[in-house]
Amino acid sequence: MYDVQKIRGDFPILSRTVNDKPLVYLDNGASAQKPQVVIDAITQAYAHEYANVHRGLHYLSNLATDKYEAVRGKVASFLGARSEDEIIFNSGTTEGINMVAYGWAAPRMEAGDEIILSVMEHHANIVPWHFLRERLGVKLVWVDVDTNGDLDPQKVLDAITPRTKLIAVTHMSNVLGTVVDVKAICAGARARGVPVLVDGSQSAVHMPVDVVDLGCDFYPITGHKLYGPSGSGAIYVRAERMAEMQPFIGGGDMIRDVHKDTVIYNDAPMKFEAGTPGIVQMIGMGVALDYMTGVGMQNIAAHEKTLRDYARSRLDGLNWLNVQGQSAGKGAIFSFTLEGAAHAHDISTVLDKKGVAVRAGQHCAQPLMEHMGLTATCRASFAMYNTEAEVDALVDALELCHELFA
Amino acid sequence: MYDVQKIRGDFPILSRTVNDKPLVYLDNGASAQKPQVVIDAITQAYAHEYANVHRGLHYLSNLATDKYEAVRGKVASFLGARSEDEIIFNSGTTEGINMVAYGWAAPRMEAGDEIILSVMEHHANIVPWHFLRERLGVKLVWVDVDTNGDLDPQKVLDAITPRTKLIAVTHMSNVLGTVVDVKAICAGARARGVPVLVDGSQSAVHMPVDVVDLGCDFYPITGHKLYGPSGSGAIYVRAERMAEMQPFIGGGDMIRDVHKDTVIYNDAPMKFEAGTPGIVQMIGMGVALDYMTGVGMQNIAAHEKTLRDYARSRLDGLNWLNVQGQSAGKGAIFSFTLEGAAHAHDISTVLDKKGVAVRAGQHCAQPLMEHMGLTATCRASFAMYNTEAEVDALVDALELCHELFA
Repeated sequence: MYDVQKIRGDFPILSRTVNDKPLVYLDNGASAQKPQVVIDAITQAYAHEYANVHRGLHYLSNLATDKYEAVRGKVASFLGARSEDEIIFNSGTTEGINMVAYGWAAPRMEAGDEIILSVMEHHANIVPWHFLRERLGVKLVWVDVDTNGDLDPQKVLDAITPRTKLIAVTHMSNVLGTVVDVKAICAGARARGVPVLVDGSQSAVHMPVDVVDLGCDFYPITGHKLYGPSGSGAIYVRAERMAEMQPFIGGGDMIRDVHKDTVIYNDAPMKFEAGTPGIVQMIGMGVALDYMTGVGMQNIAAHEKTLRDYARSRLDGLNWLNVQGQSAGKGAIFSFTLEGAAHAHDISTVLDKKGVAVRAGQHCAQPLMEHMGLTATCRASFAMYNTEAEVDALVDALELCHELFA
Repeated sequence: MYDVQKIRGDFPILSRTVNDKPLVYLDNGASAQKPQVVIDAITQAYAHEYANVHRGLHYLSNLATDKYEAVRGKVASFLGARSEDEIIFNSGTTEGINMVAYGWAAPRMEAGDEIILSVMEHHANIVPWHFLRERLGVKLVWVDVDTNGDLDPQKVLDAITPRTKLIAVTHMSNVLGTVVDVKAICAGARARGVPVLVDGSQSAVHMPVDVVDLGCDFYPITGHKLYGPSGSGAIYVRAERMAEMQPFIGGGDMIRDVHKDTVIYNDAPMKFEAGTPGIVQMIGMGVALDYMTGVGMQNIAAHEKTLRDYARSRLDGLNWLNVQGQSAGKGAIFSFTLEGAAHAHDISTVLDKKGVAVRAGQHCAQPLMEHMGLTATCRASFAMYNTEAEVDALVDALELCHELFA
């Protein structure tokens, strides 16, 4: 039995008001709120157990190192990696994908080589590849989604040519909620010898993930979307790809020996983690993953599926509302526009007056917006702590918008 | 009147014990402890005011954005920058120097070009330049320090050739405490048209800094050494250099427009800040800077000078102790070895039993260790909250080491 009220009680911010209304936080696609256990872990670390990691031999340093390094196994387990050595810590998906672009892709690509992207990628999974286009002459090959927002895996595989060096595709669209059949893409790509990066920034929050089952080569995740601290994150890198990757960020901790004329790098994954890391953020992210697995990823997915179905039925009842993305298996993310002149930003402002937090804009997915022929949408994105009553609050506020702007 | 006991009371961890002894935390060169106001700011942010920044238009997003962006002015003021547009947020000095290496140096250097480094640089200010050596054939030109650990600015300037493209030098050695006359280096280099990166990771913690007065081009700092959260940091980049720099990390927020075939970048400094940043860490770093300036950087410097003089006199009295680095104007950082067979790691372990936390090893400065003919030292590094009684505790514990290992 999924006790959403008990879960809500674990998140202190959810009991606050905004504009004298109870907060209805539906901006989870941008960032999720934090349970008290995560906040407590941060406080505990700074107030009682703080020191740098990997460096000292003193008590506090060892304590912090043990807590920090224990997170690597939690992430490996959360993603189903074969070994925690396939997990690299970082500040989130943006850094993770940049590391792949700089450390793995750039050294093995030249002008005319191709990277396949879906049109619904987040800018974090576009701009690093634009760097390679600008700097190396790599060609970006785009695969469109259909009118429901679905991505046909076969269309992705059909885009493979002898020059294809990488497929980079999201697991779940941050705009439409579409869940991509990345397993089919990975299987087909592997048969053609093409590695696949799957952007797990949204998906890992909402469903169980098993990178071995998916068959992907790279799977970045973002701690602050996973109910963890800002500035936390990690990336799964399949061991074979890890062995091919050159260091990205240089500094302390990622080296074995530094001399004036030579440098010898540390073993992976340390080779890819330079300088003092986000010690306390990563400890907090570990607690957030424990919290999620304690609730159960299957349970979270089931709760959010119920929310999605309820939200879909209620929003479908508003004949002046255009919901983008009708994929049958989509997650609980709804982007929409109102018929008439109301701009997404105006809608979000009215919703905010009612305490309902949504995002308005391009959602860091401008190619998708262009594909849909839109300049901006509002987006309501749900999380494990949202309720059907909050769907109702969203609908009530939207009806007010309709009255105001119709 | 500098009330060190009042300051100590602001740092909760300082009242704890380690191995049943009061904690004597002398590993501040690795990372500093956090005052309660910083911890409270983090808790407040996550428990009551959290959302992503720059993205939403809703109340919490605006609130978080205002608090986050207010830190840029604090950093600019802290460093004496002309404008907050010269401040780029990041996760610390390691990321900052890598950004300069990838974004500014790499595009304008070719095989045979030279970068001048002092032999006492931290690995964070070495390895990114080794990348350019390995990948582009750039030549690293090393300038030694003298037997006191002083770096002669003229020797640095004498190393300039027509191929010199950058000087990268620390403002304060993390091993020896040497304070480098970077103002003289910057003035001479500027006259020769050579930009200077000054590593401020240690120095900004211990003295007032004015980047305009110093005349440097790049000045990275590290939040977790500045009594702020792990994973926080910033870099000052002189406007002219900022204009020359290409983007380093690609993703959301650093772009104006992303299309399938083109990308248009945001204005600086946003152009260099991709993806969701370390929101709460940066808010916490702002509070830490406020805390430091509230105490007064001149006052902190004076207190630490007193501590340095006292520690120097007490350590000089131990004729079986070899202190590395005798620069007259050094900061309160003491690296040392014991005569006889005792390894630095063994010494630090004994000190730890007495509650005294020091670091043992190469201190991410292997070229300096080789220059000194050592494989490892112990390092006691002091901060604003340390006391003369803690110097005494260090000396007592060292005397125990001497008894045990002599």
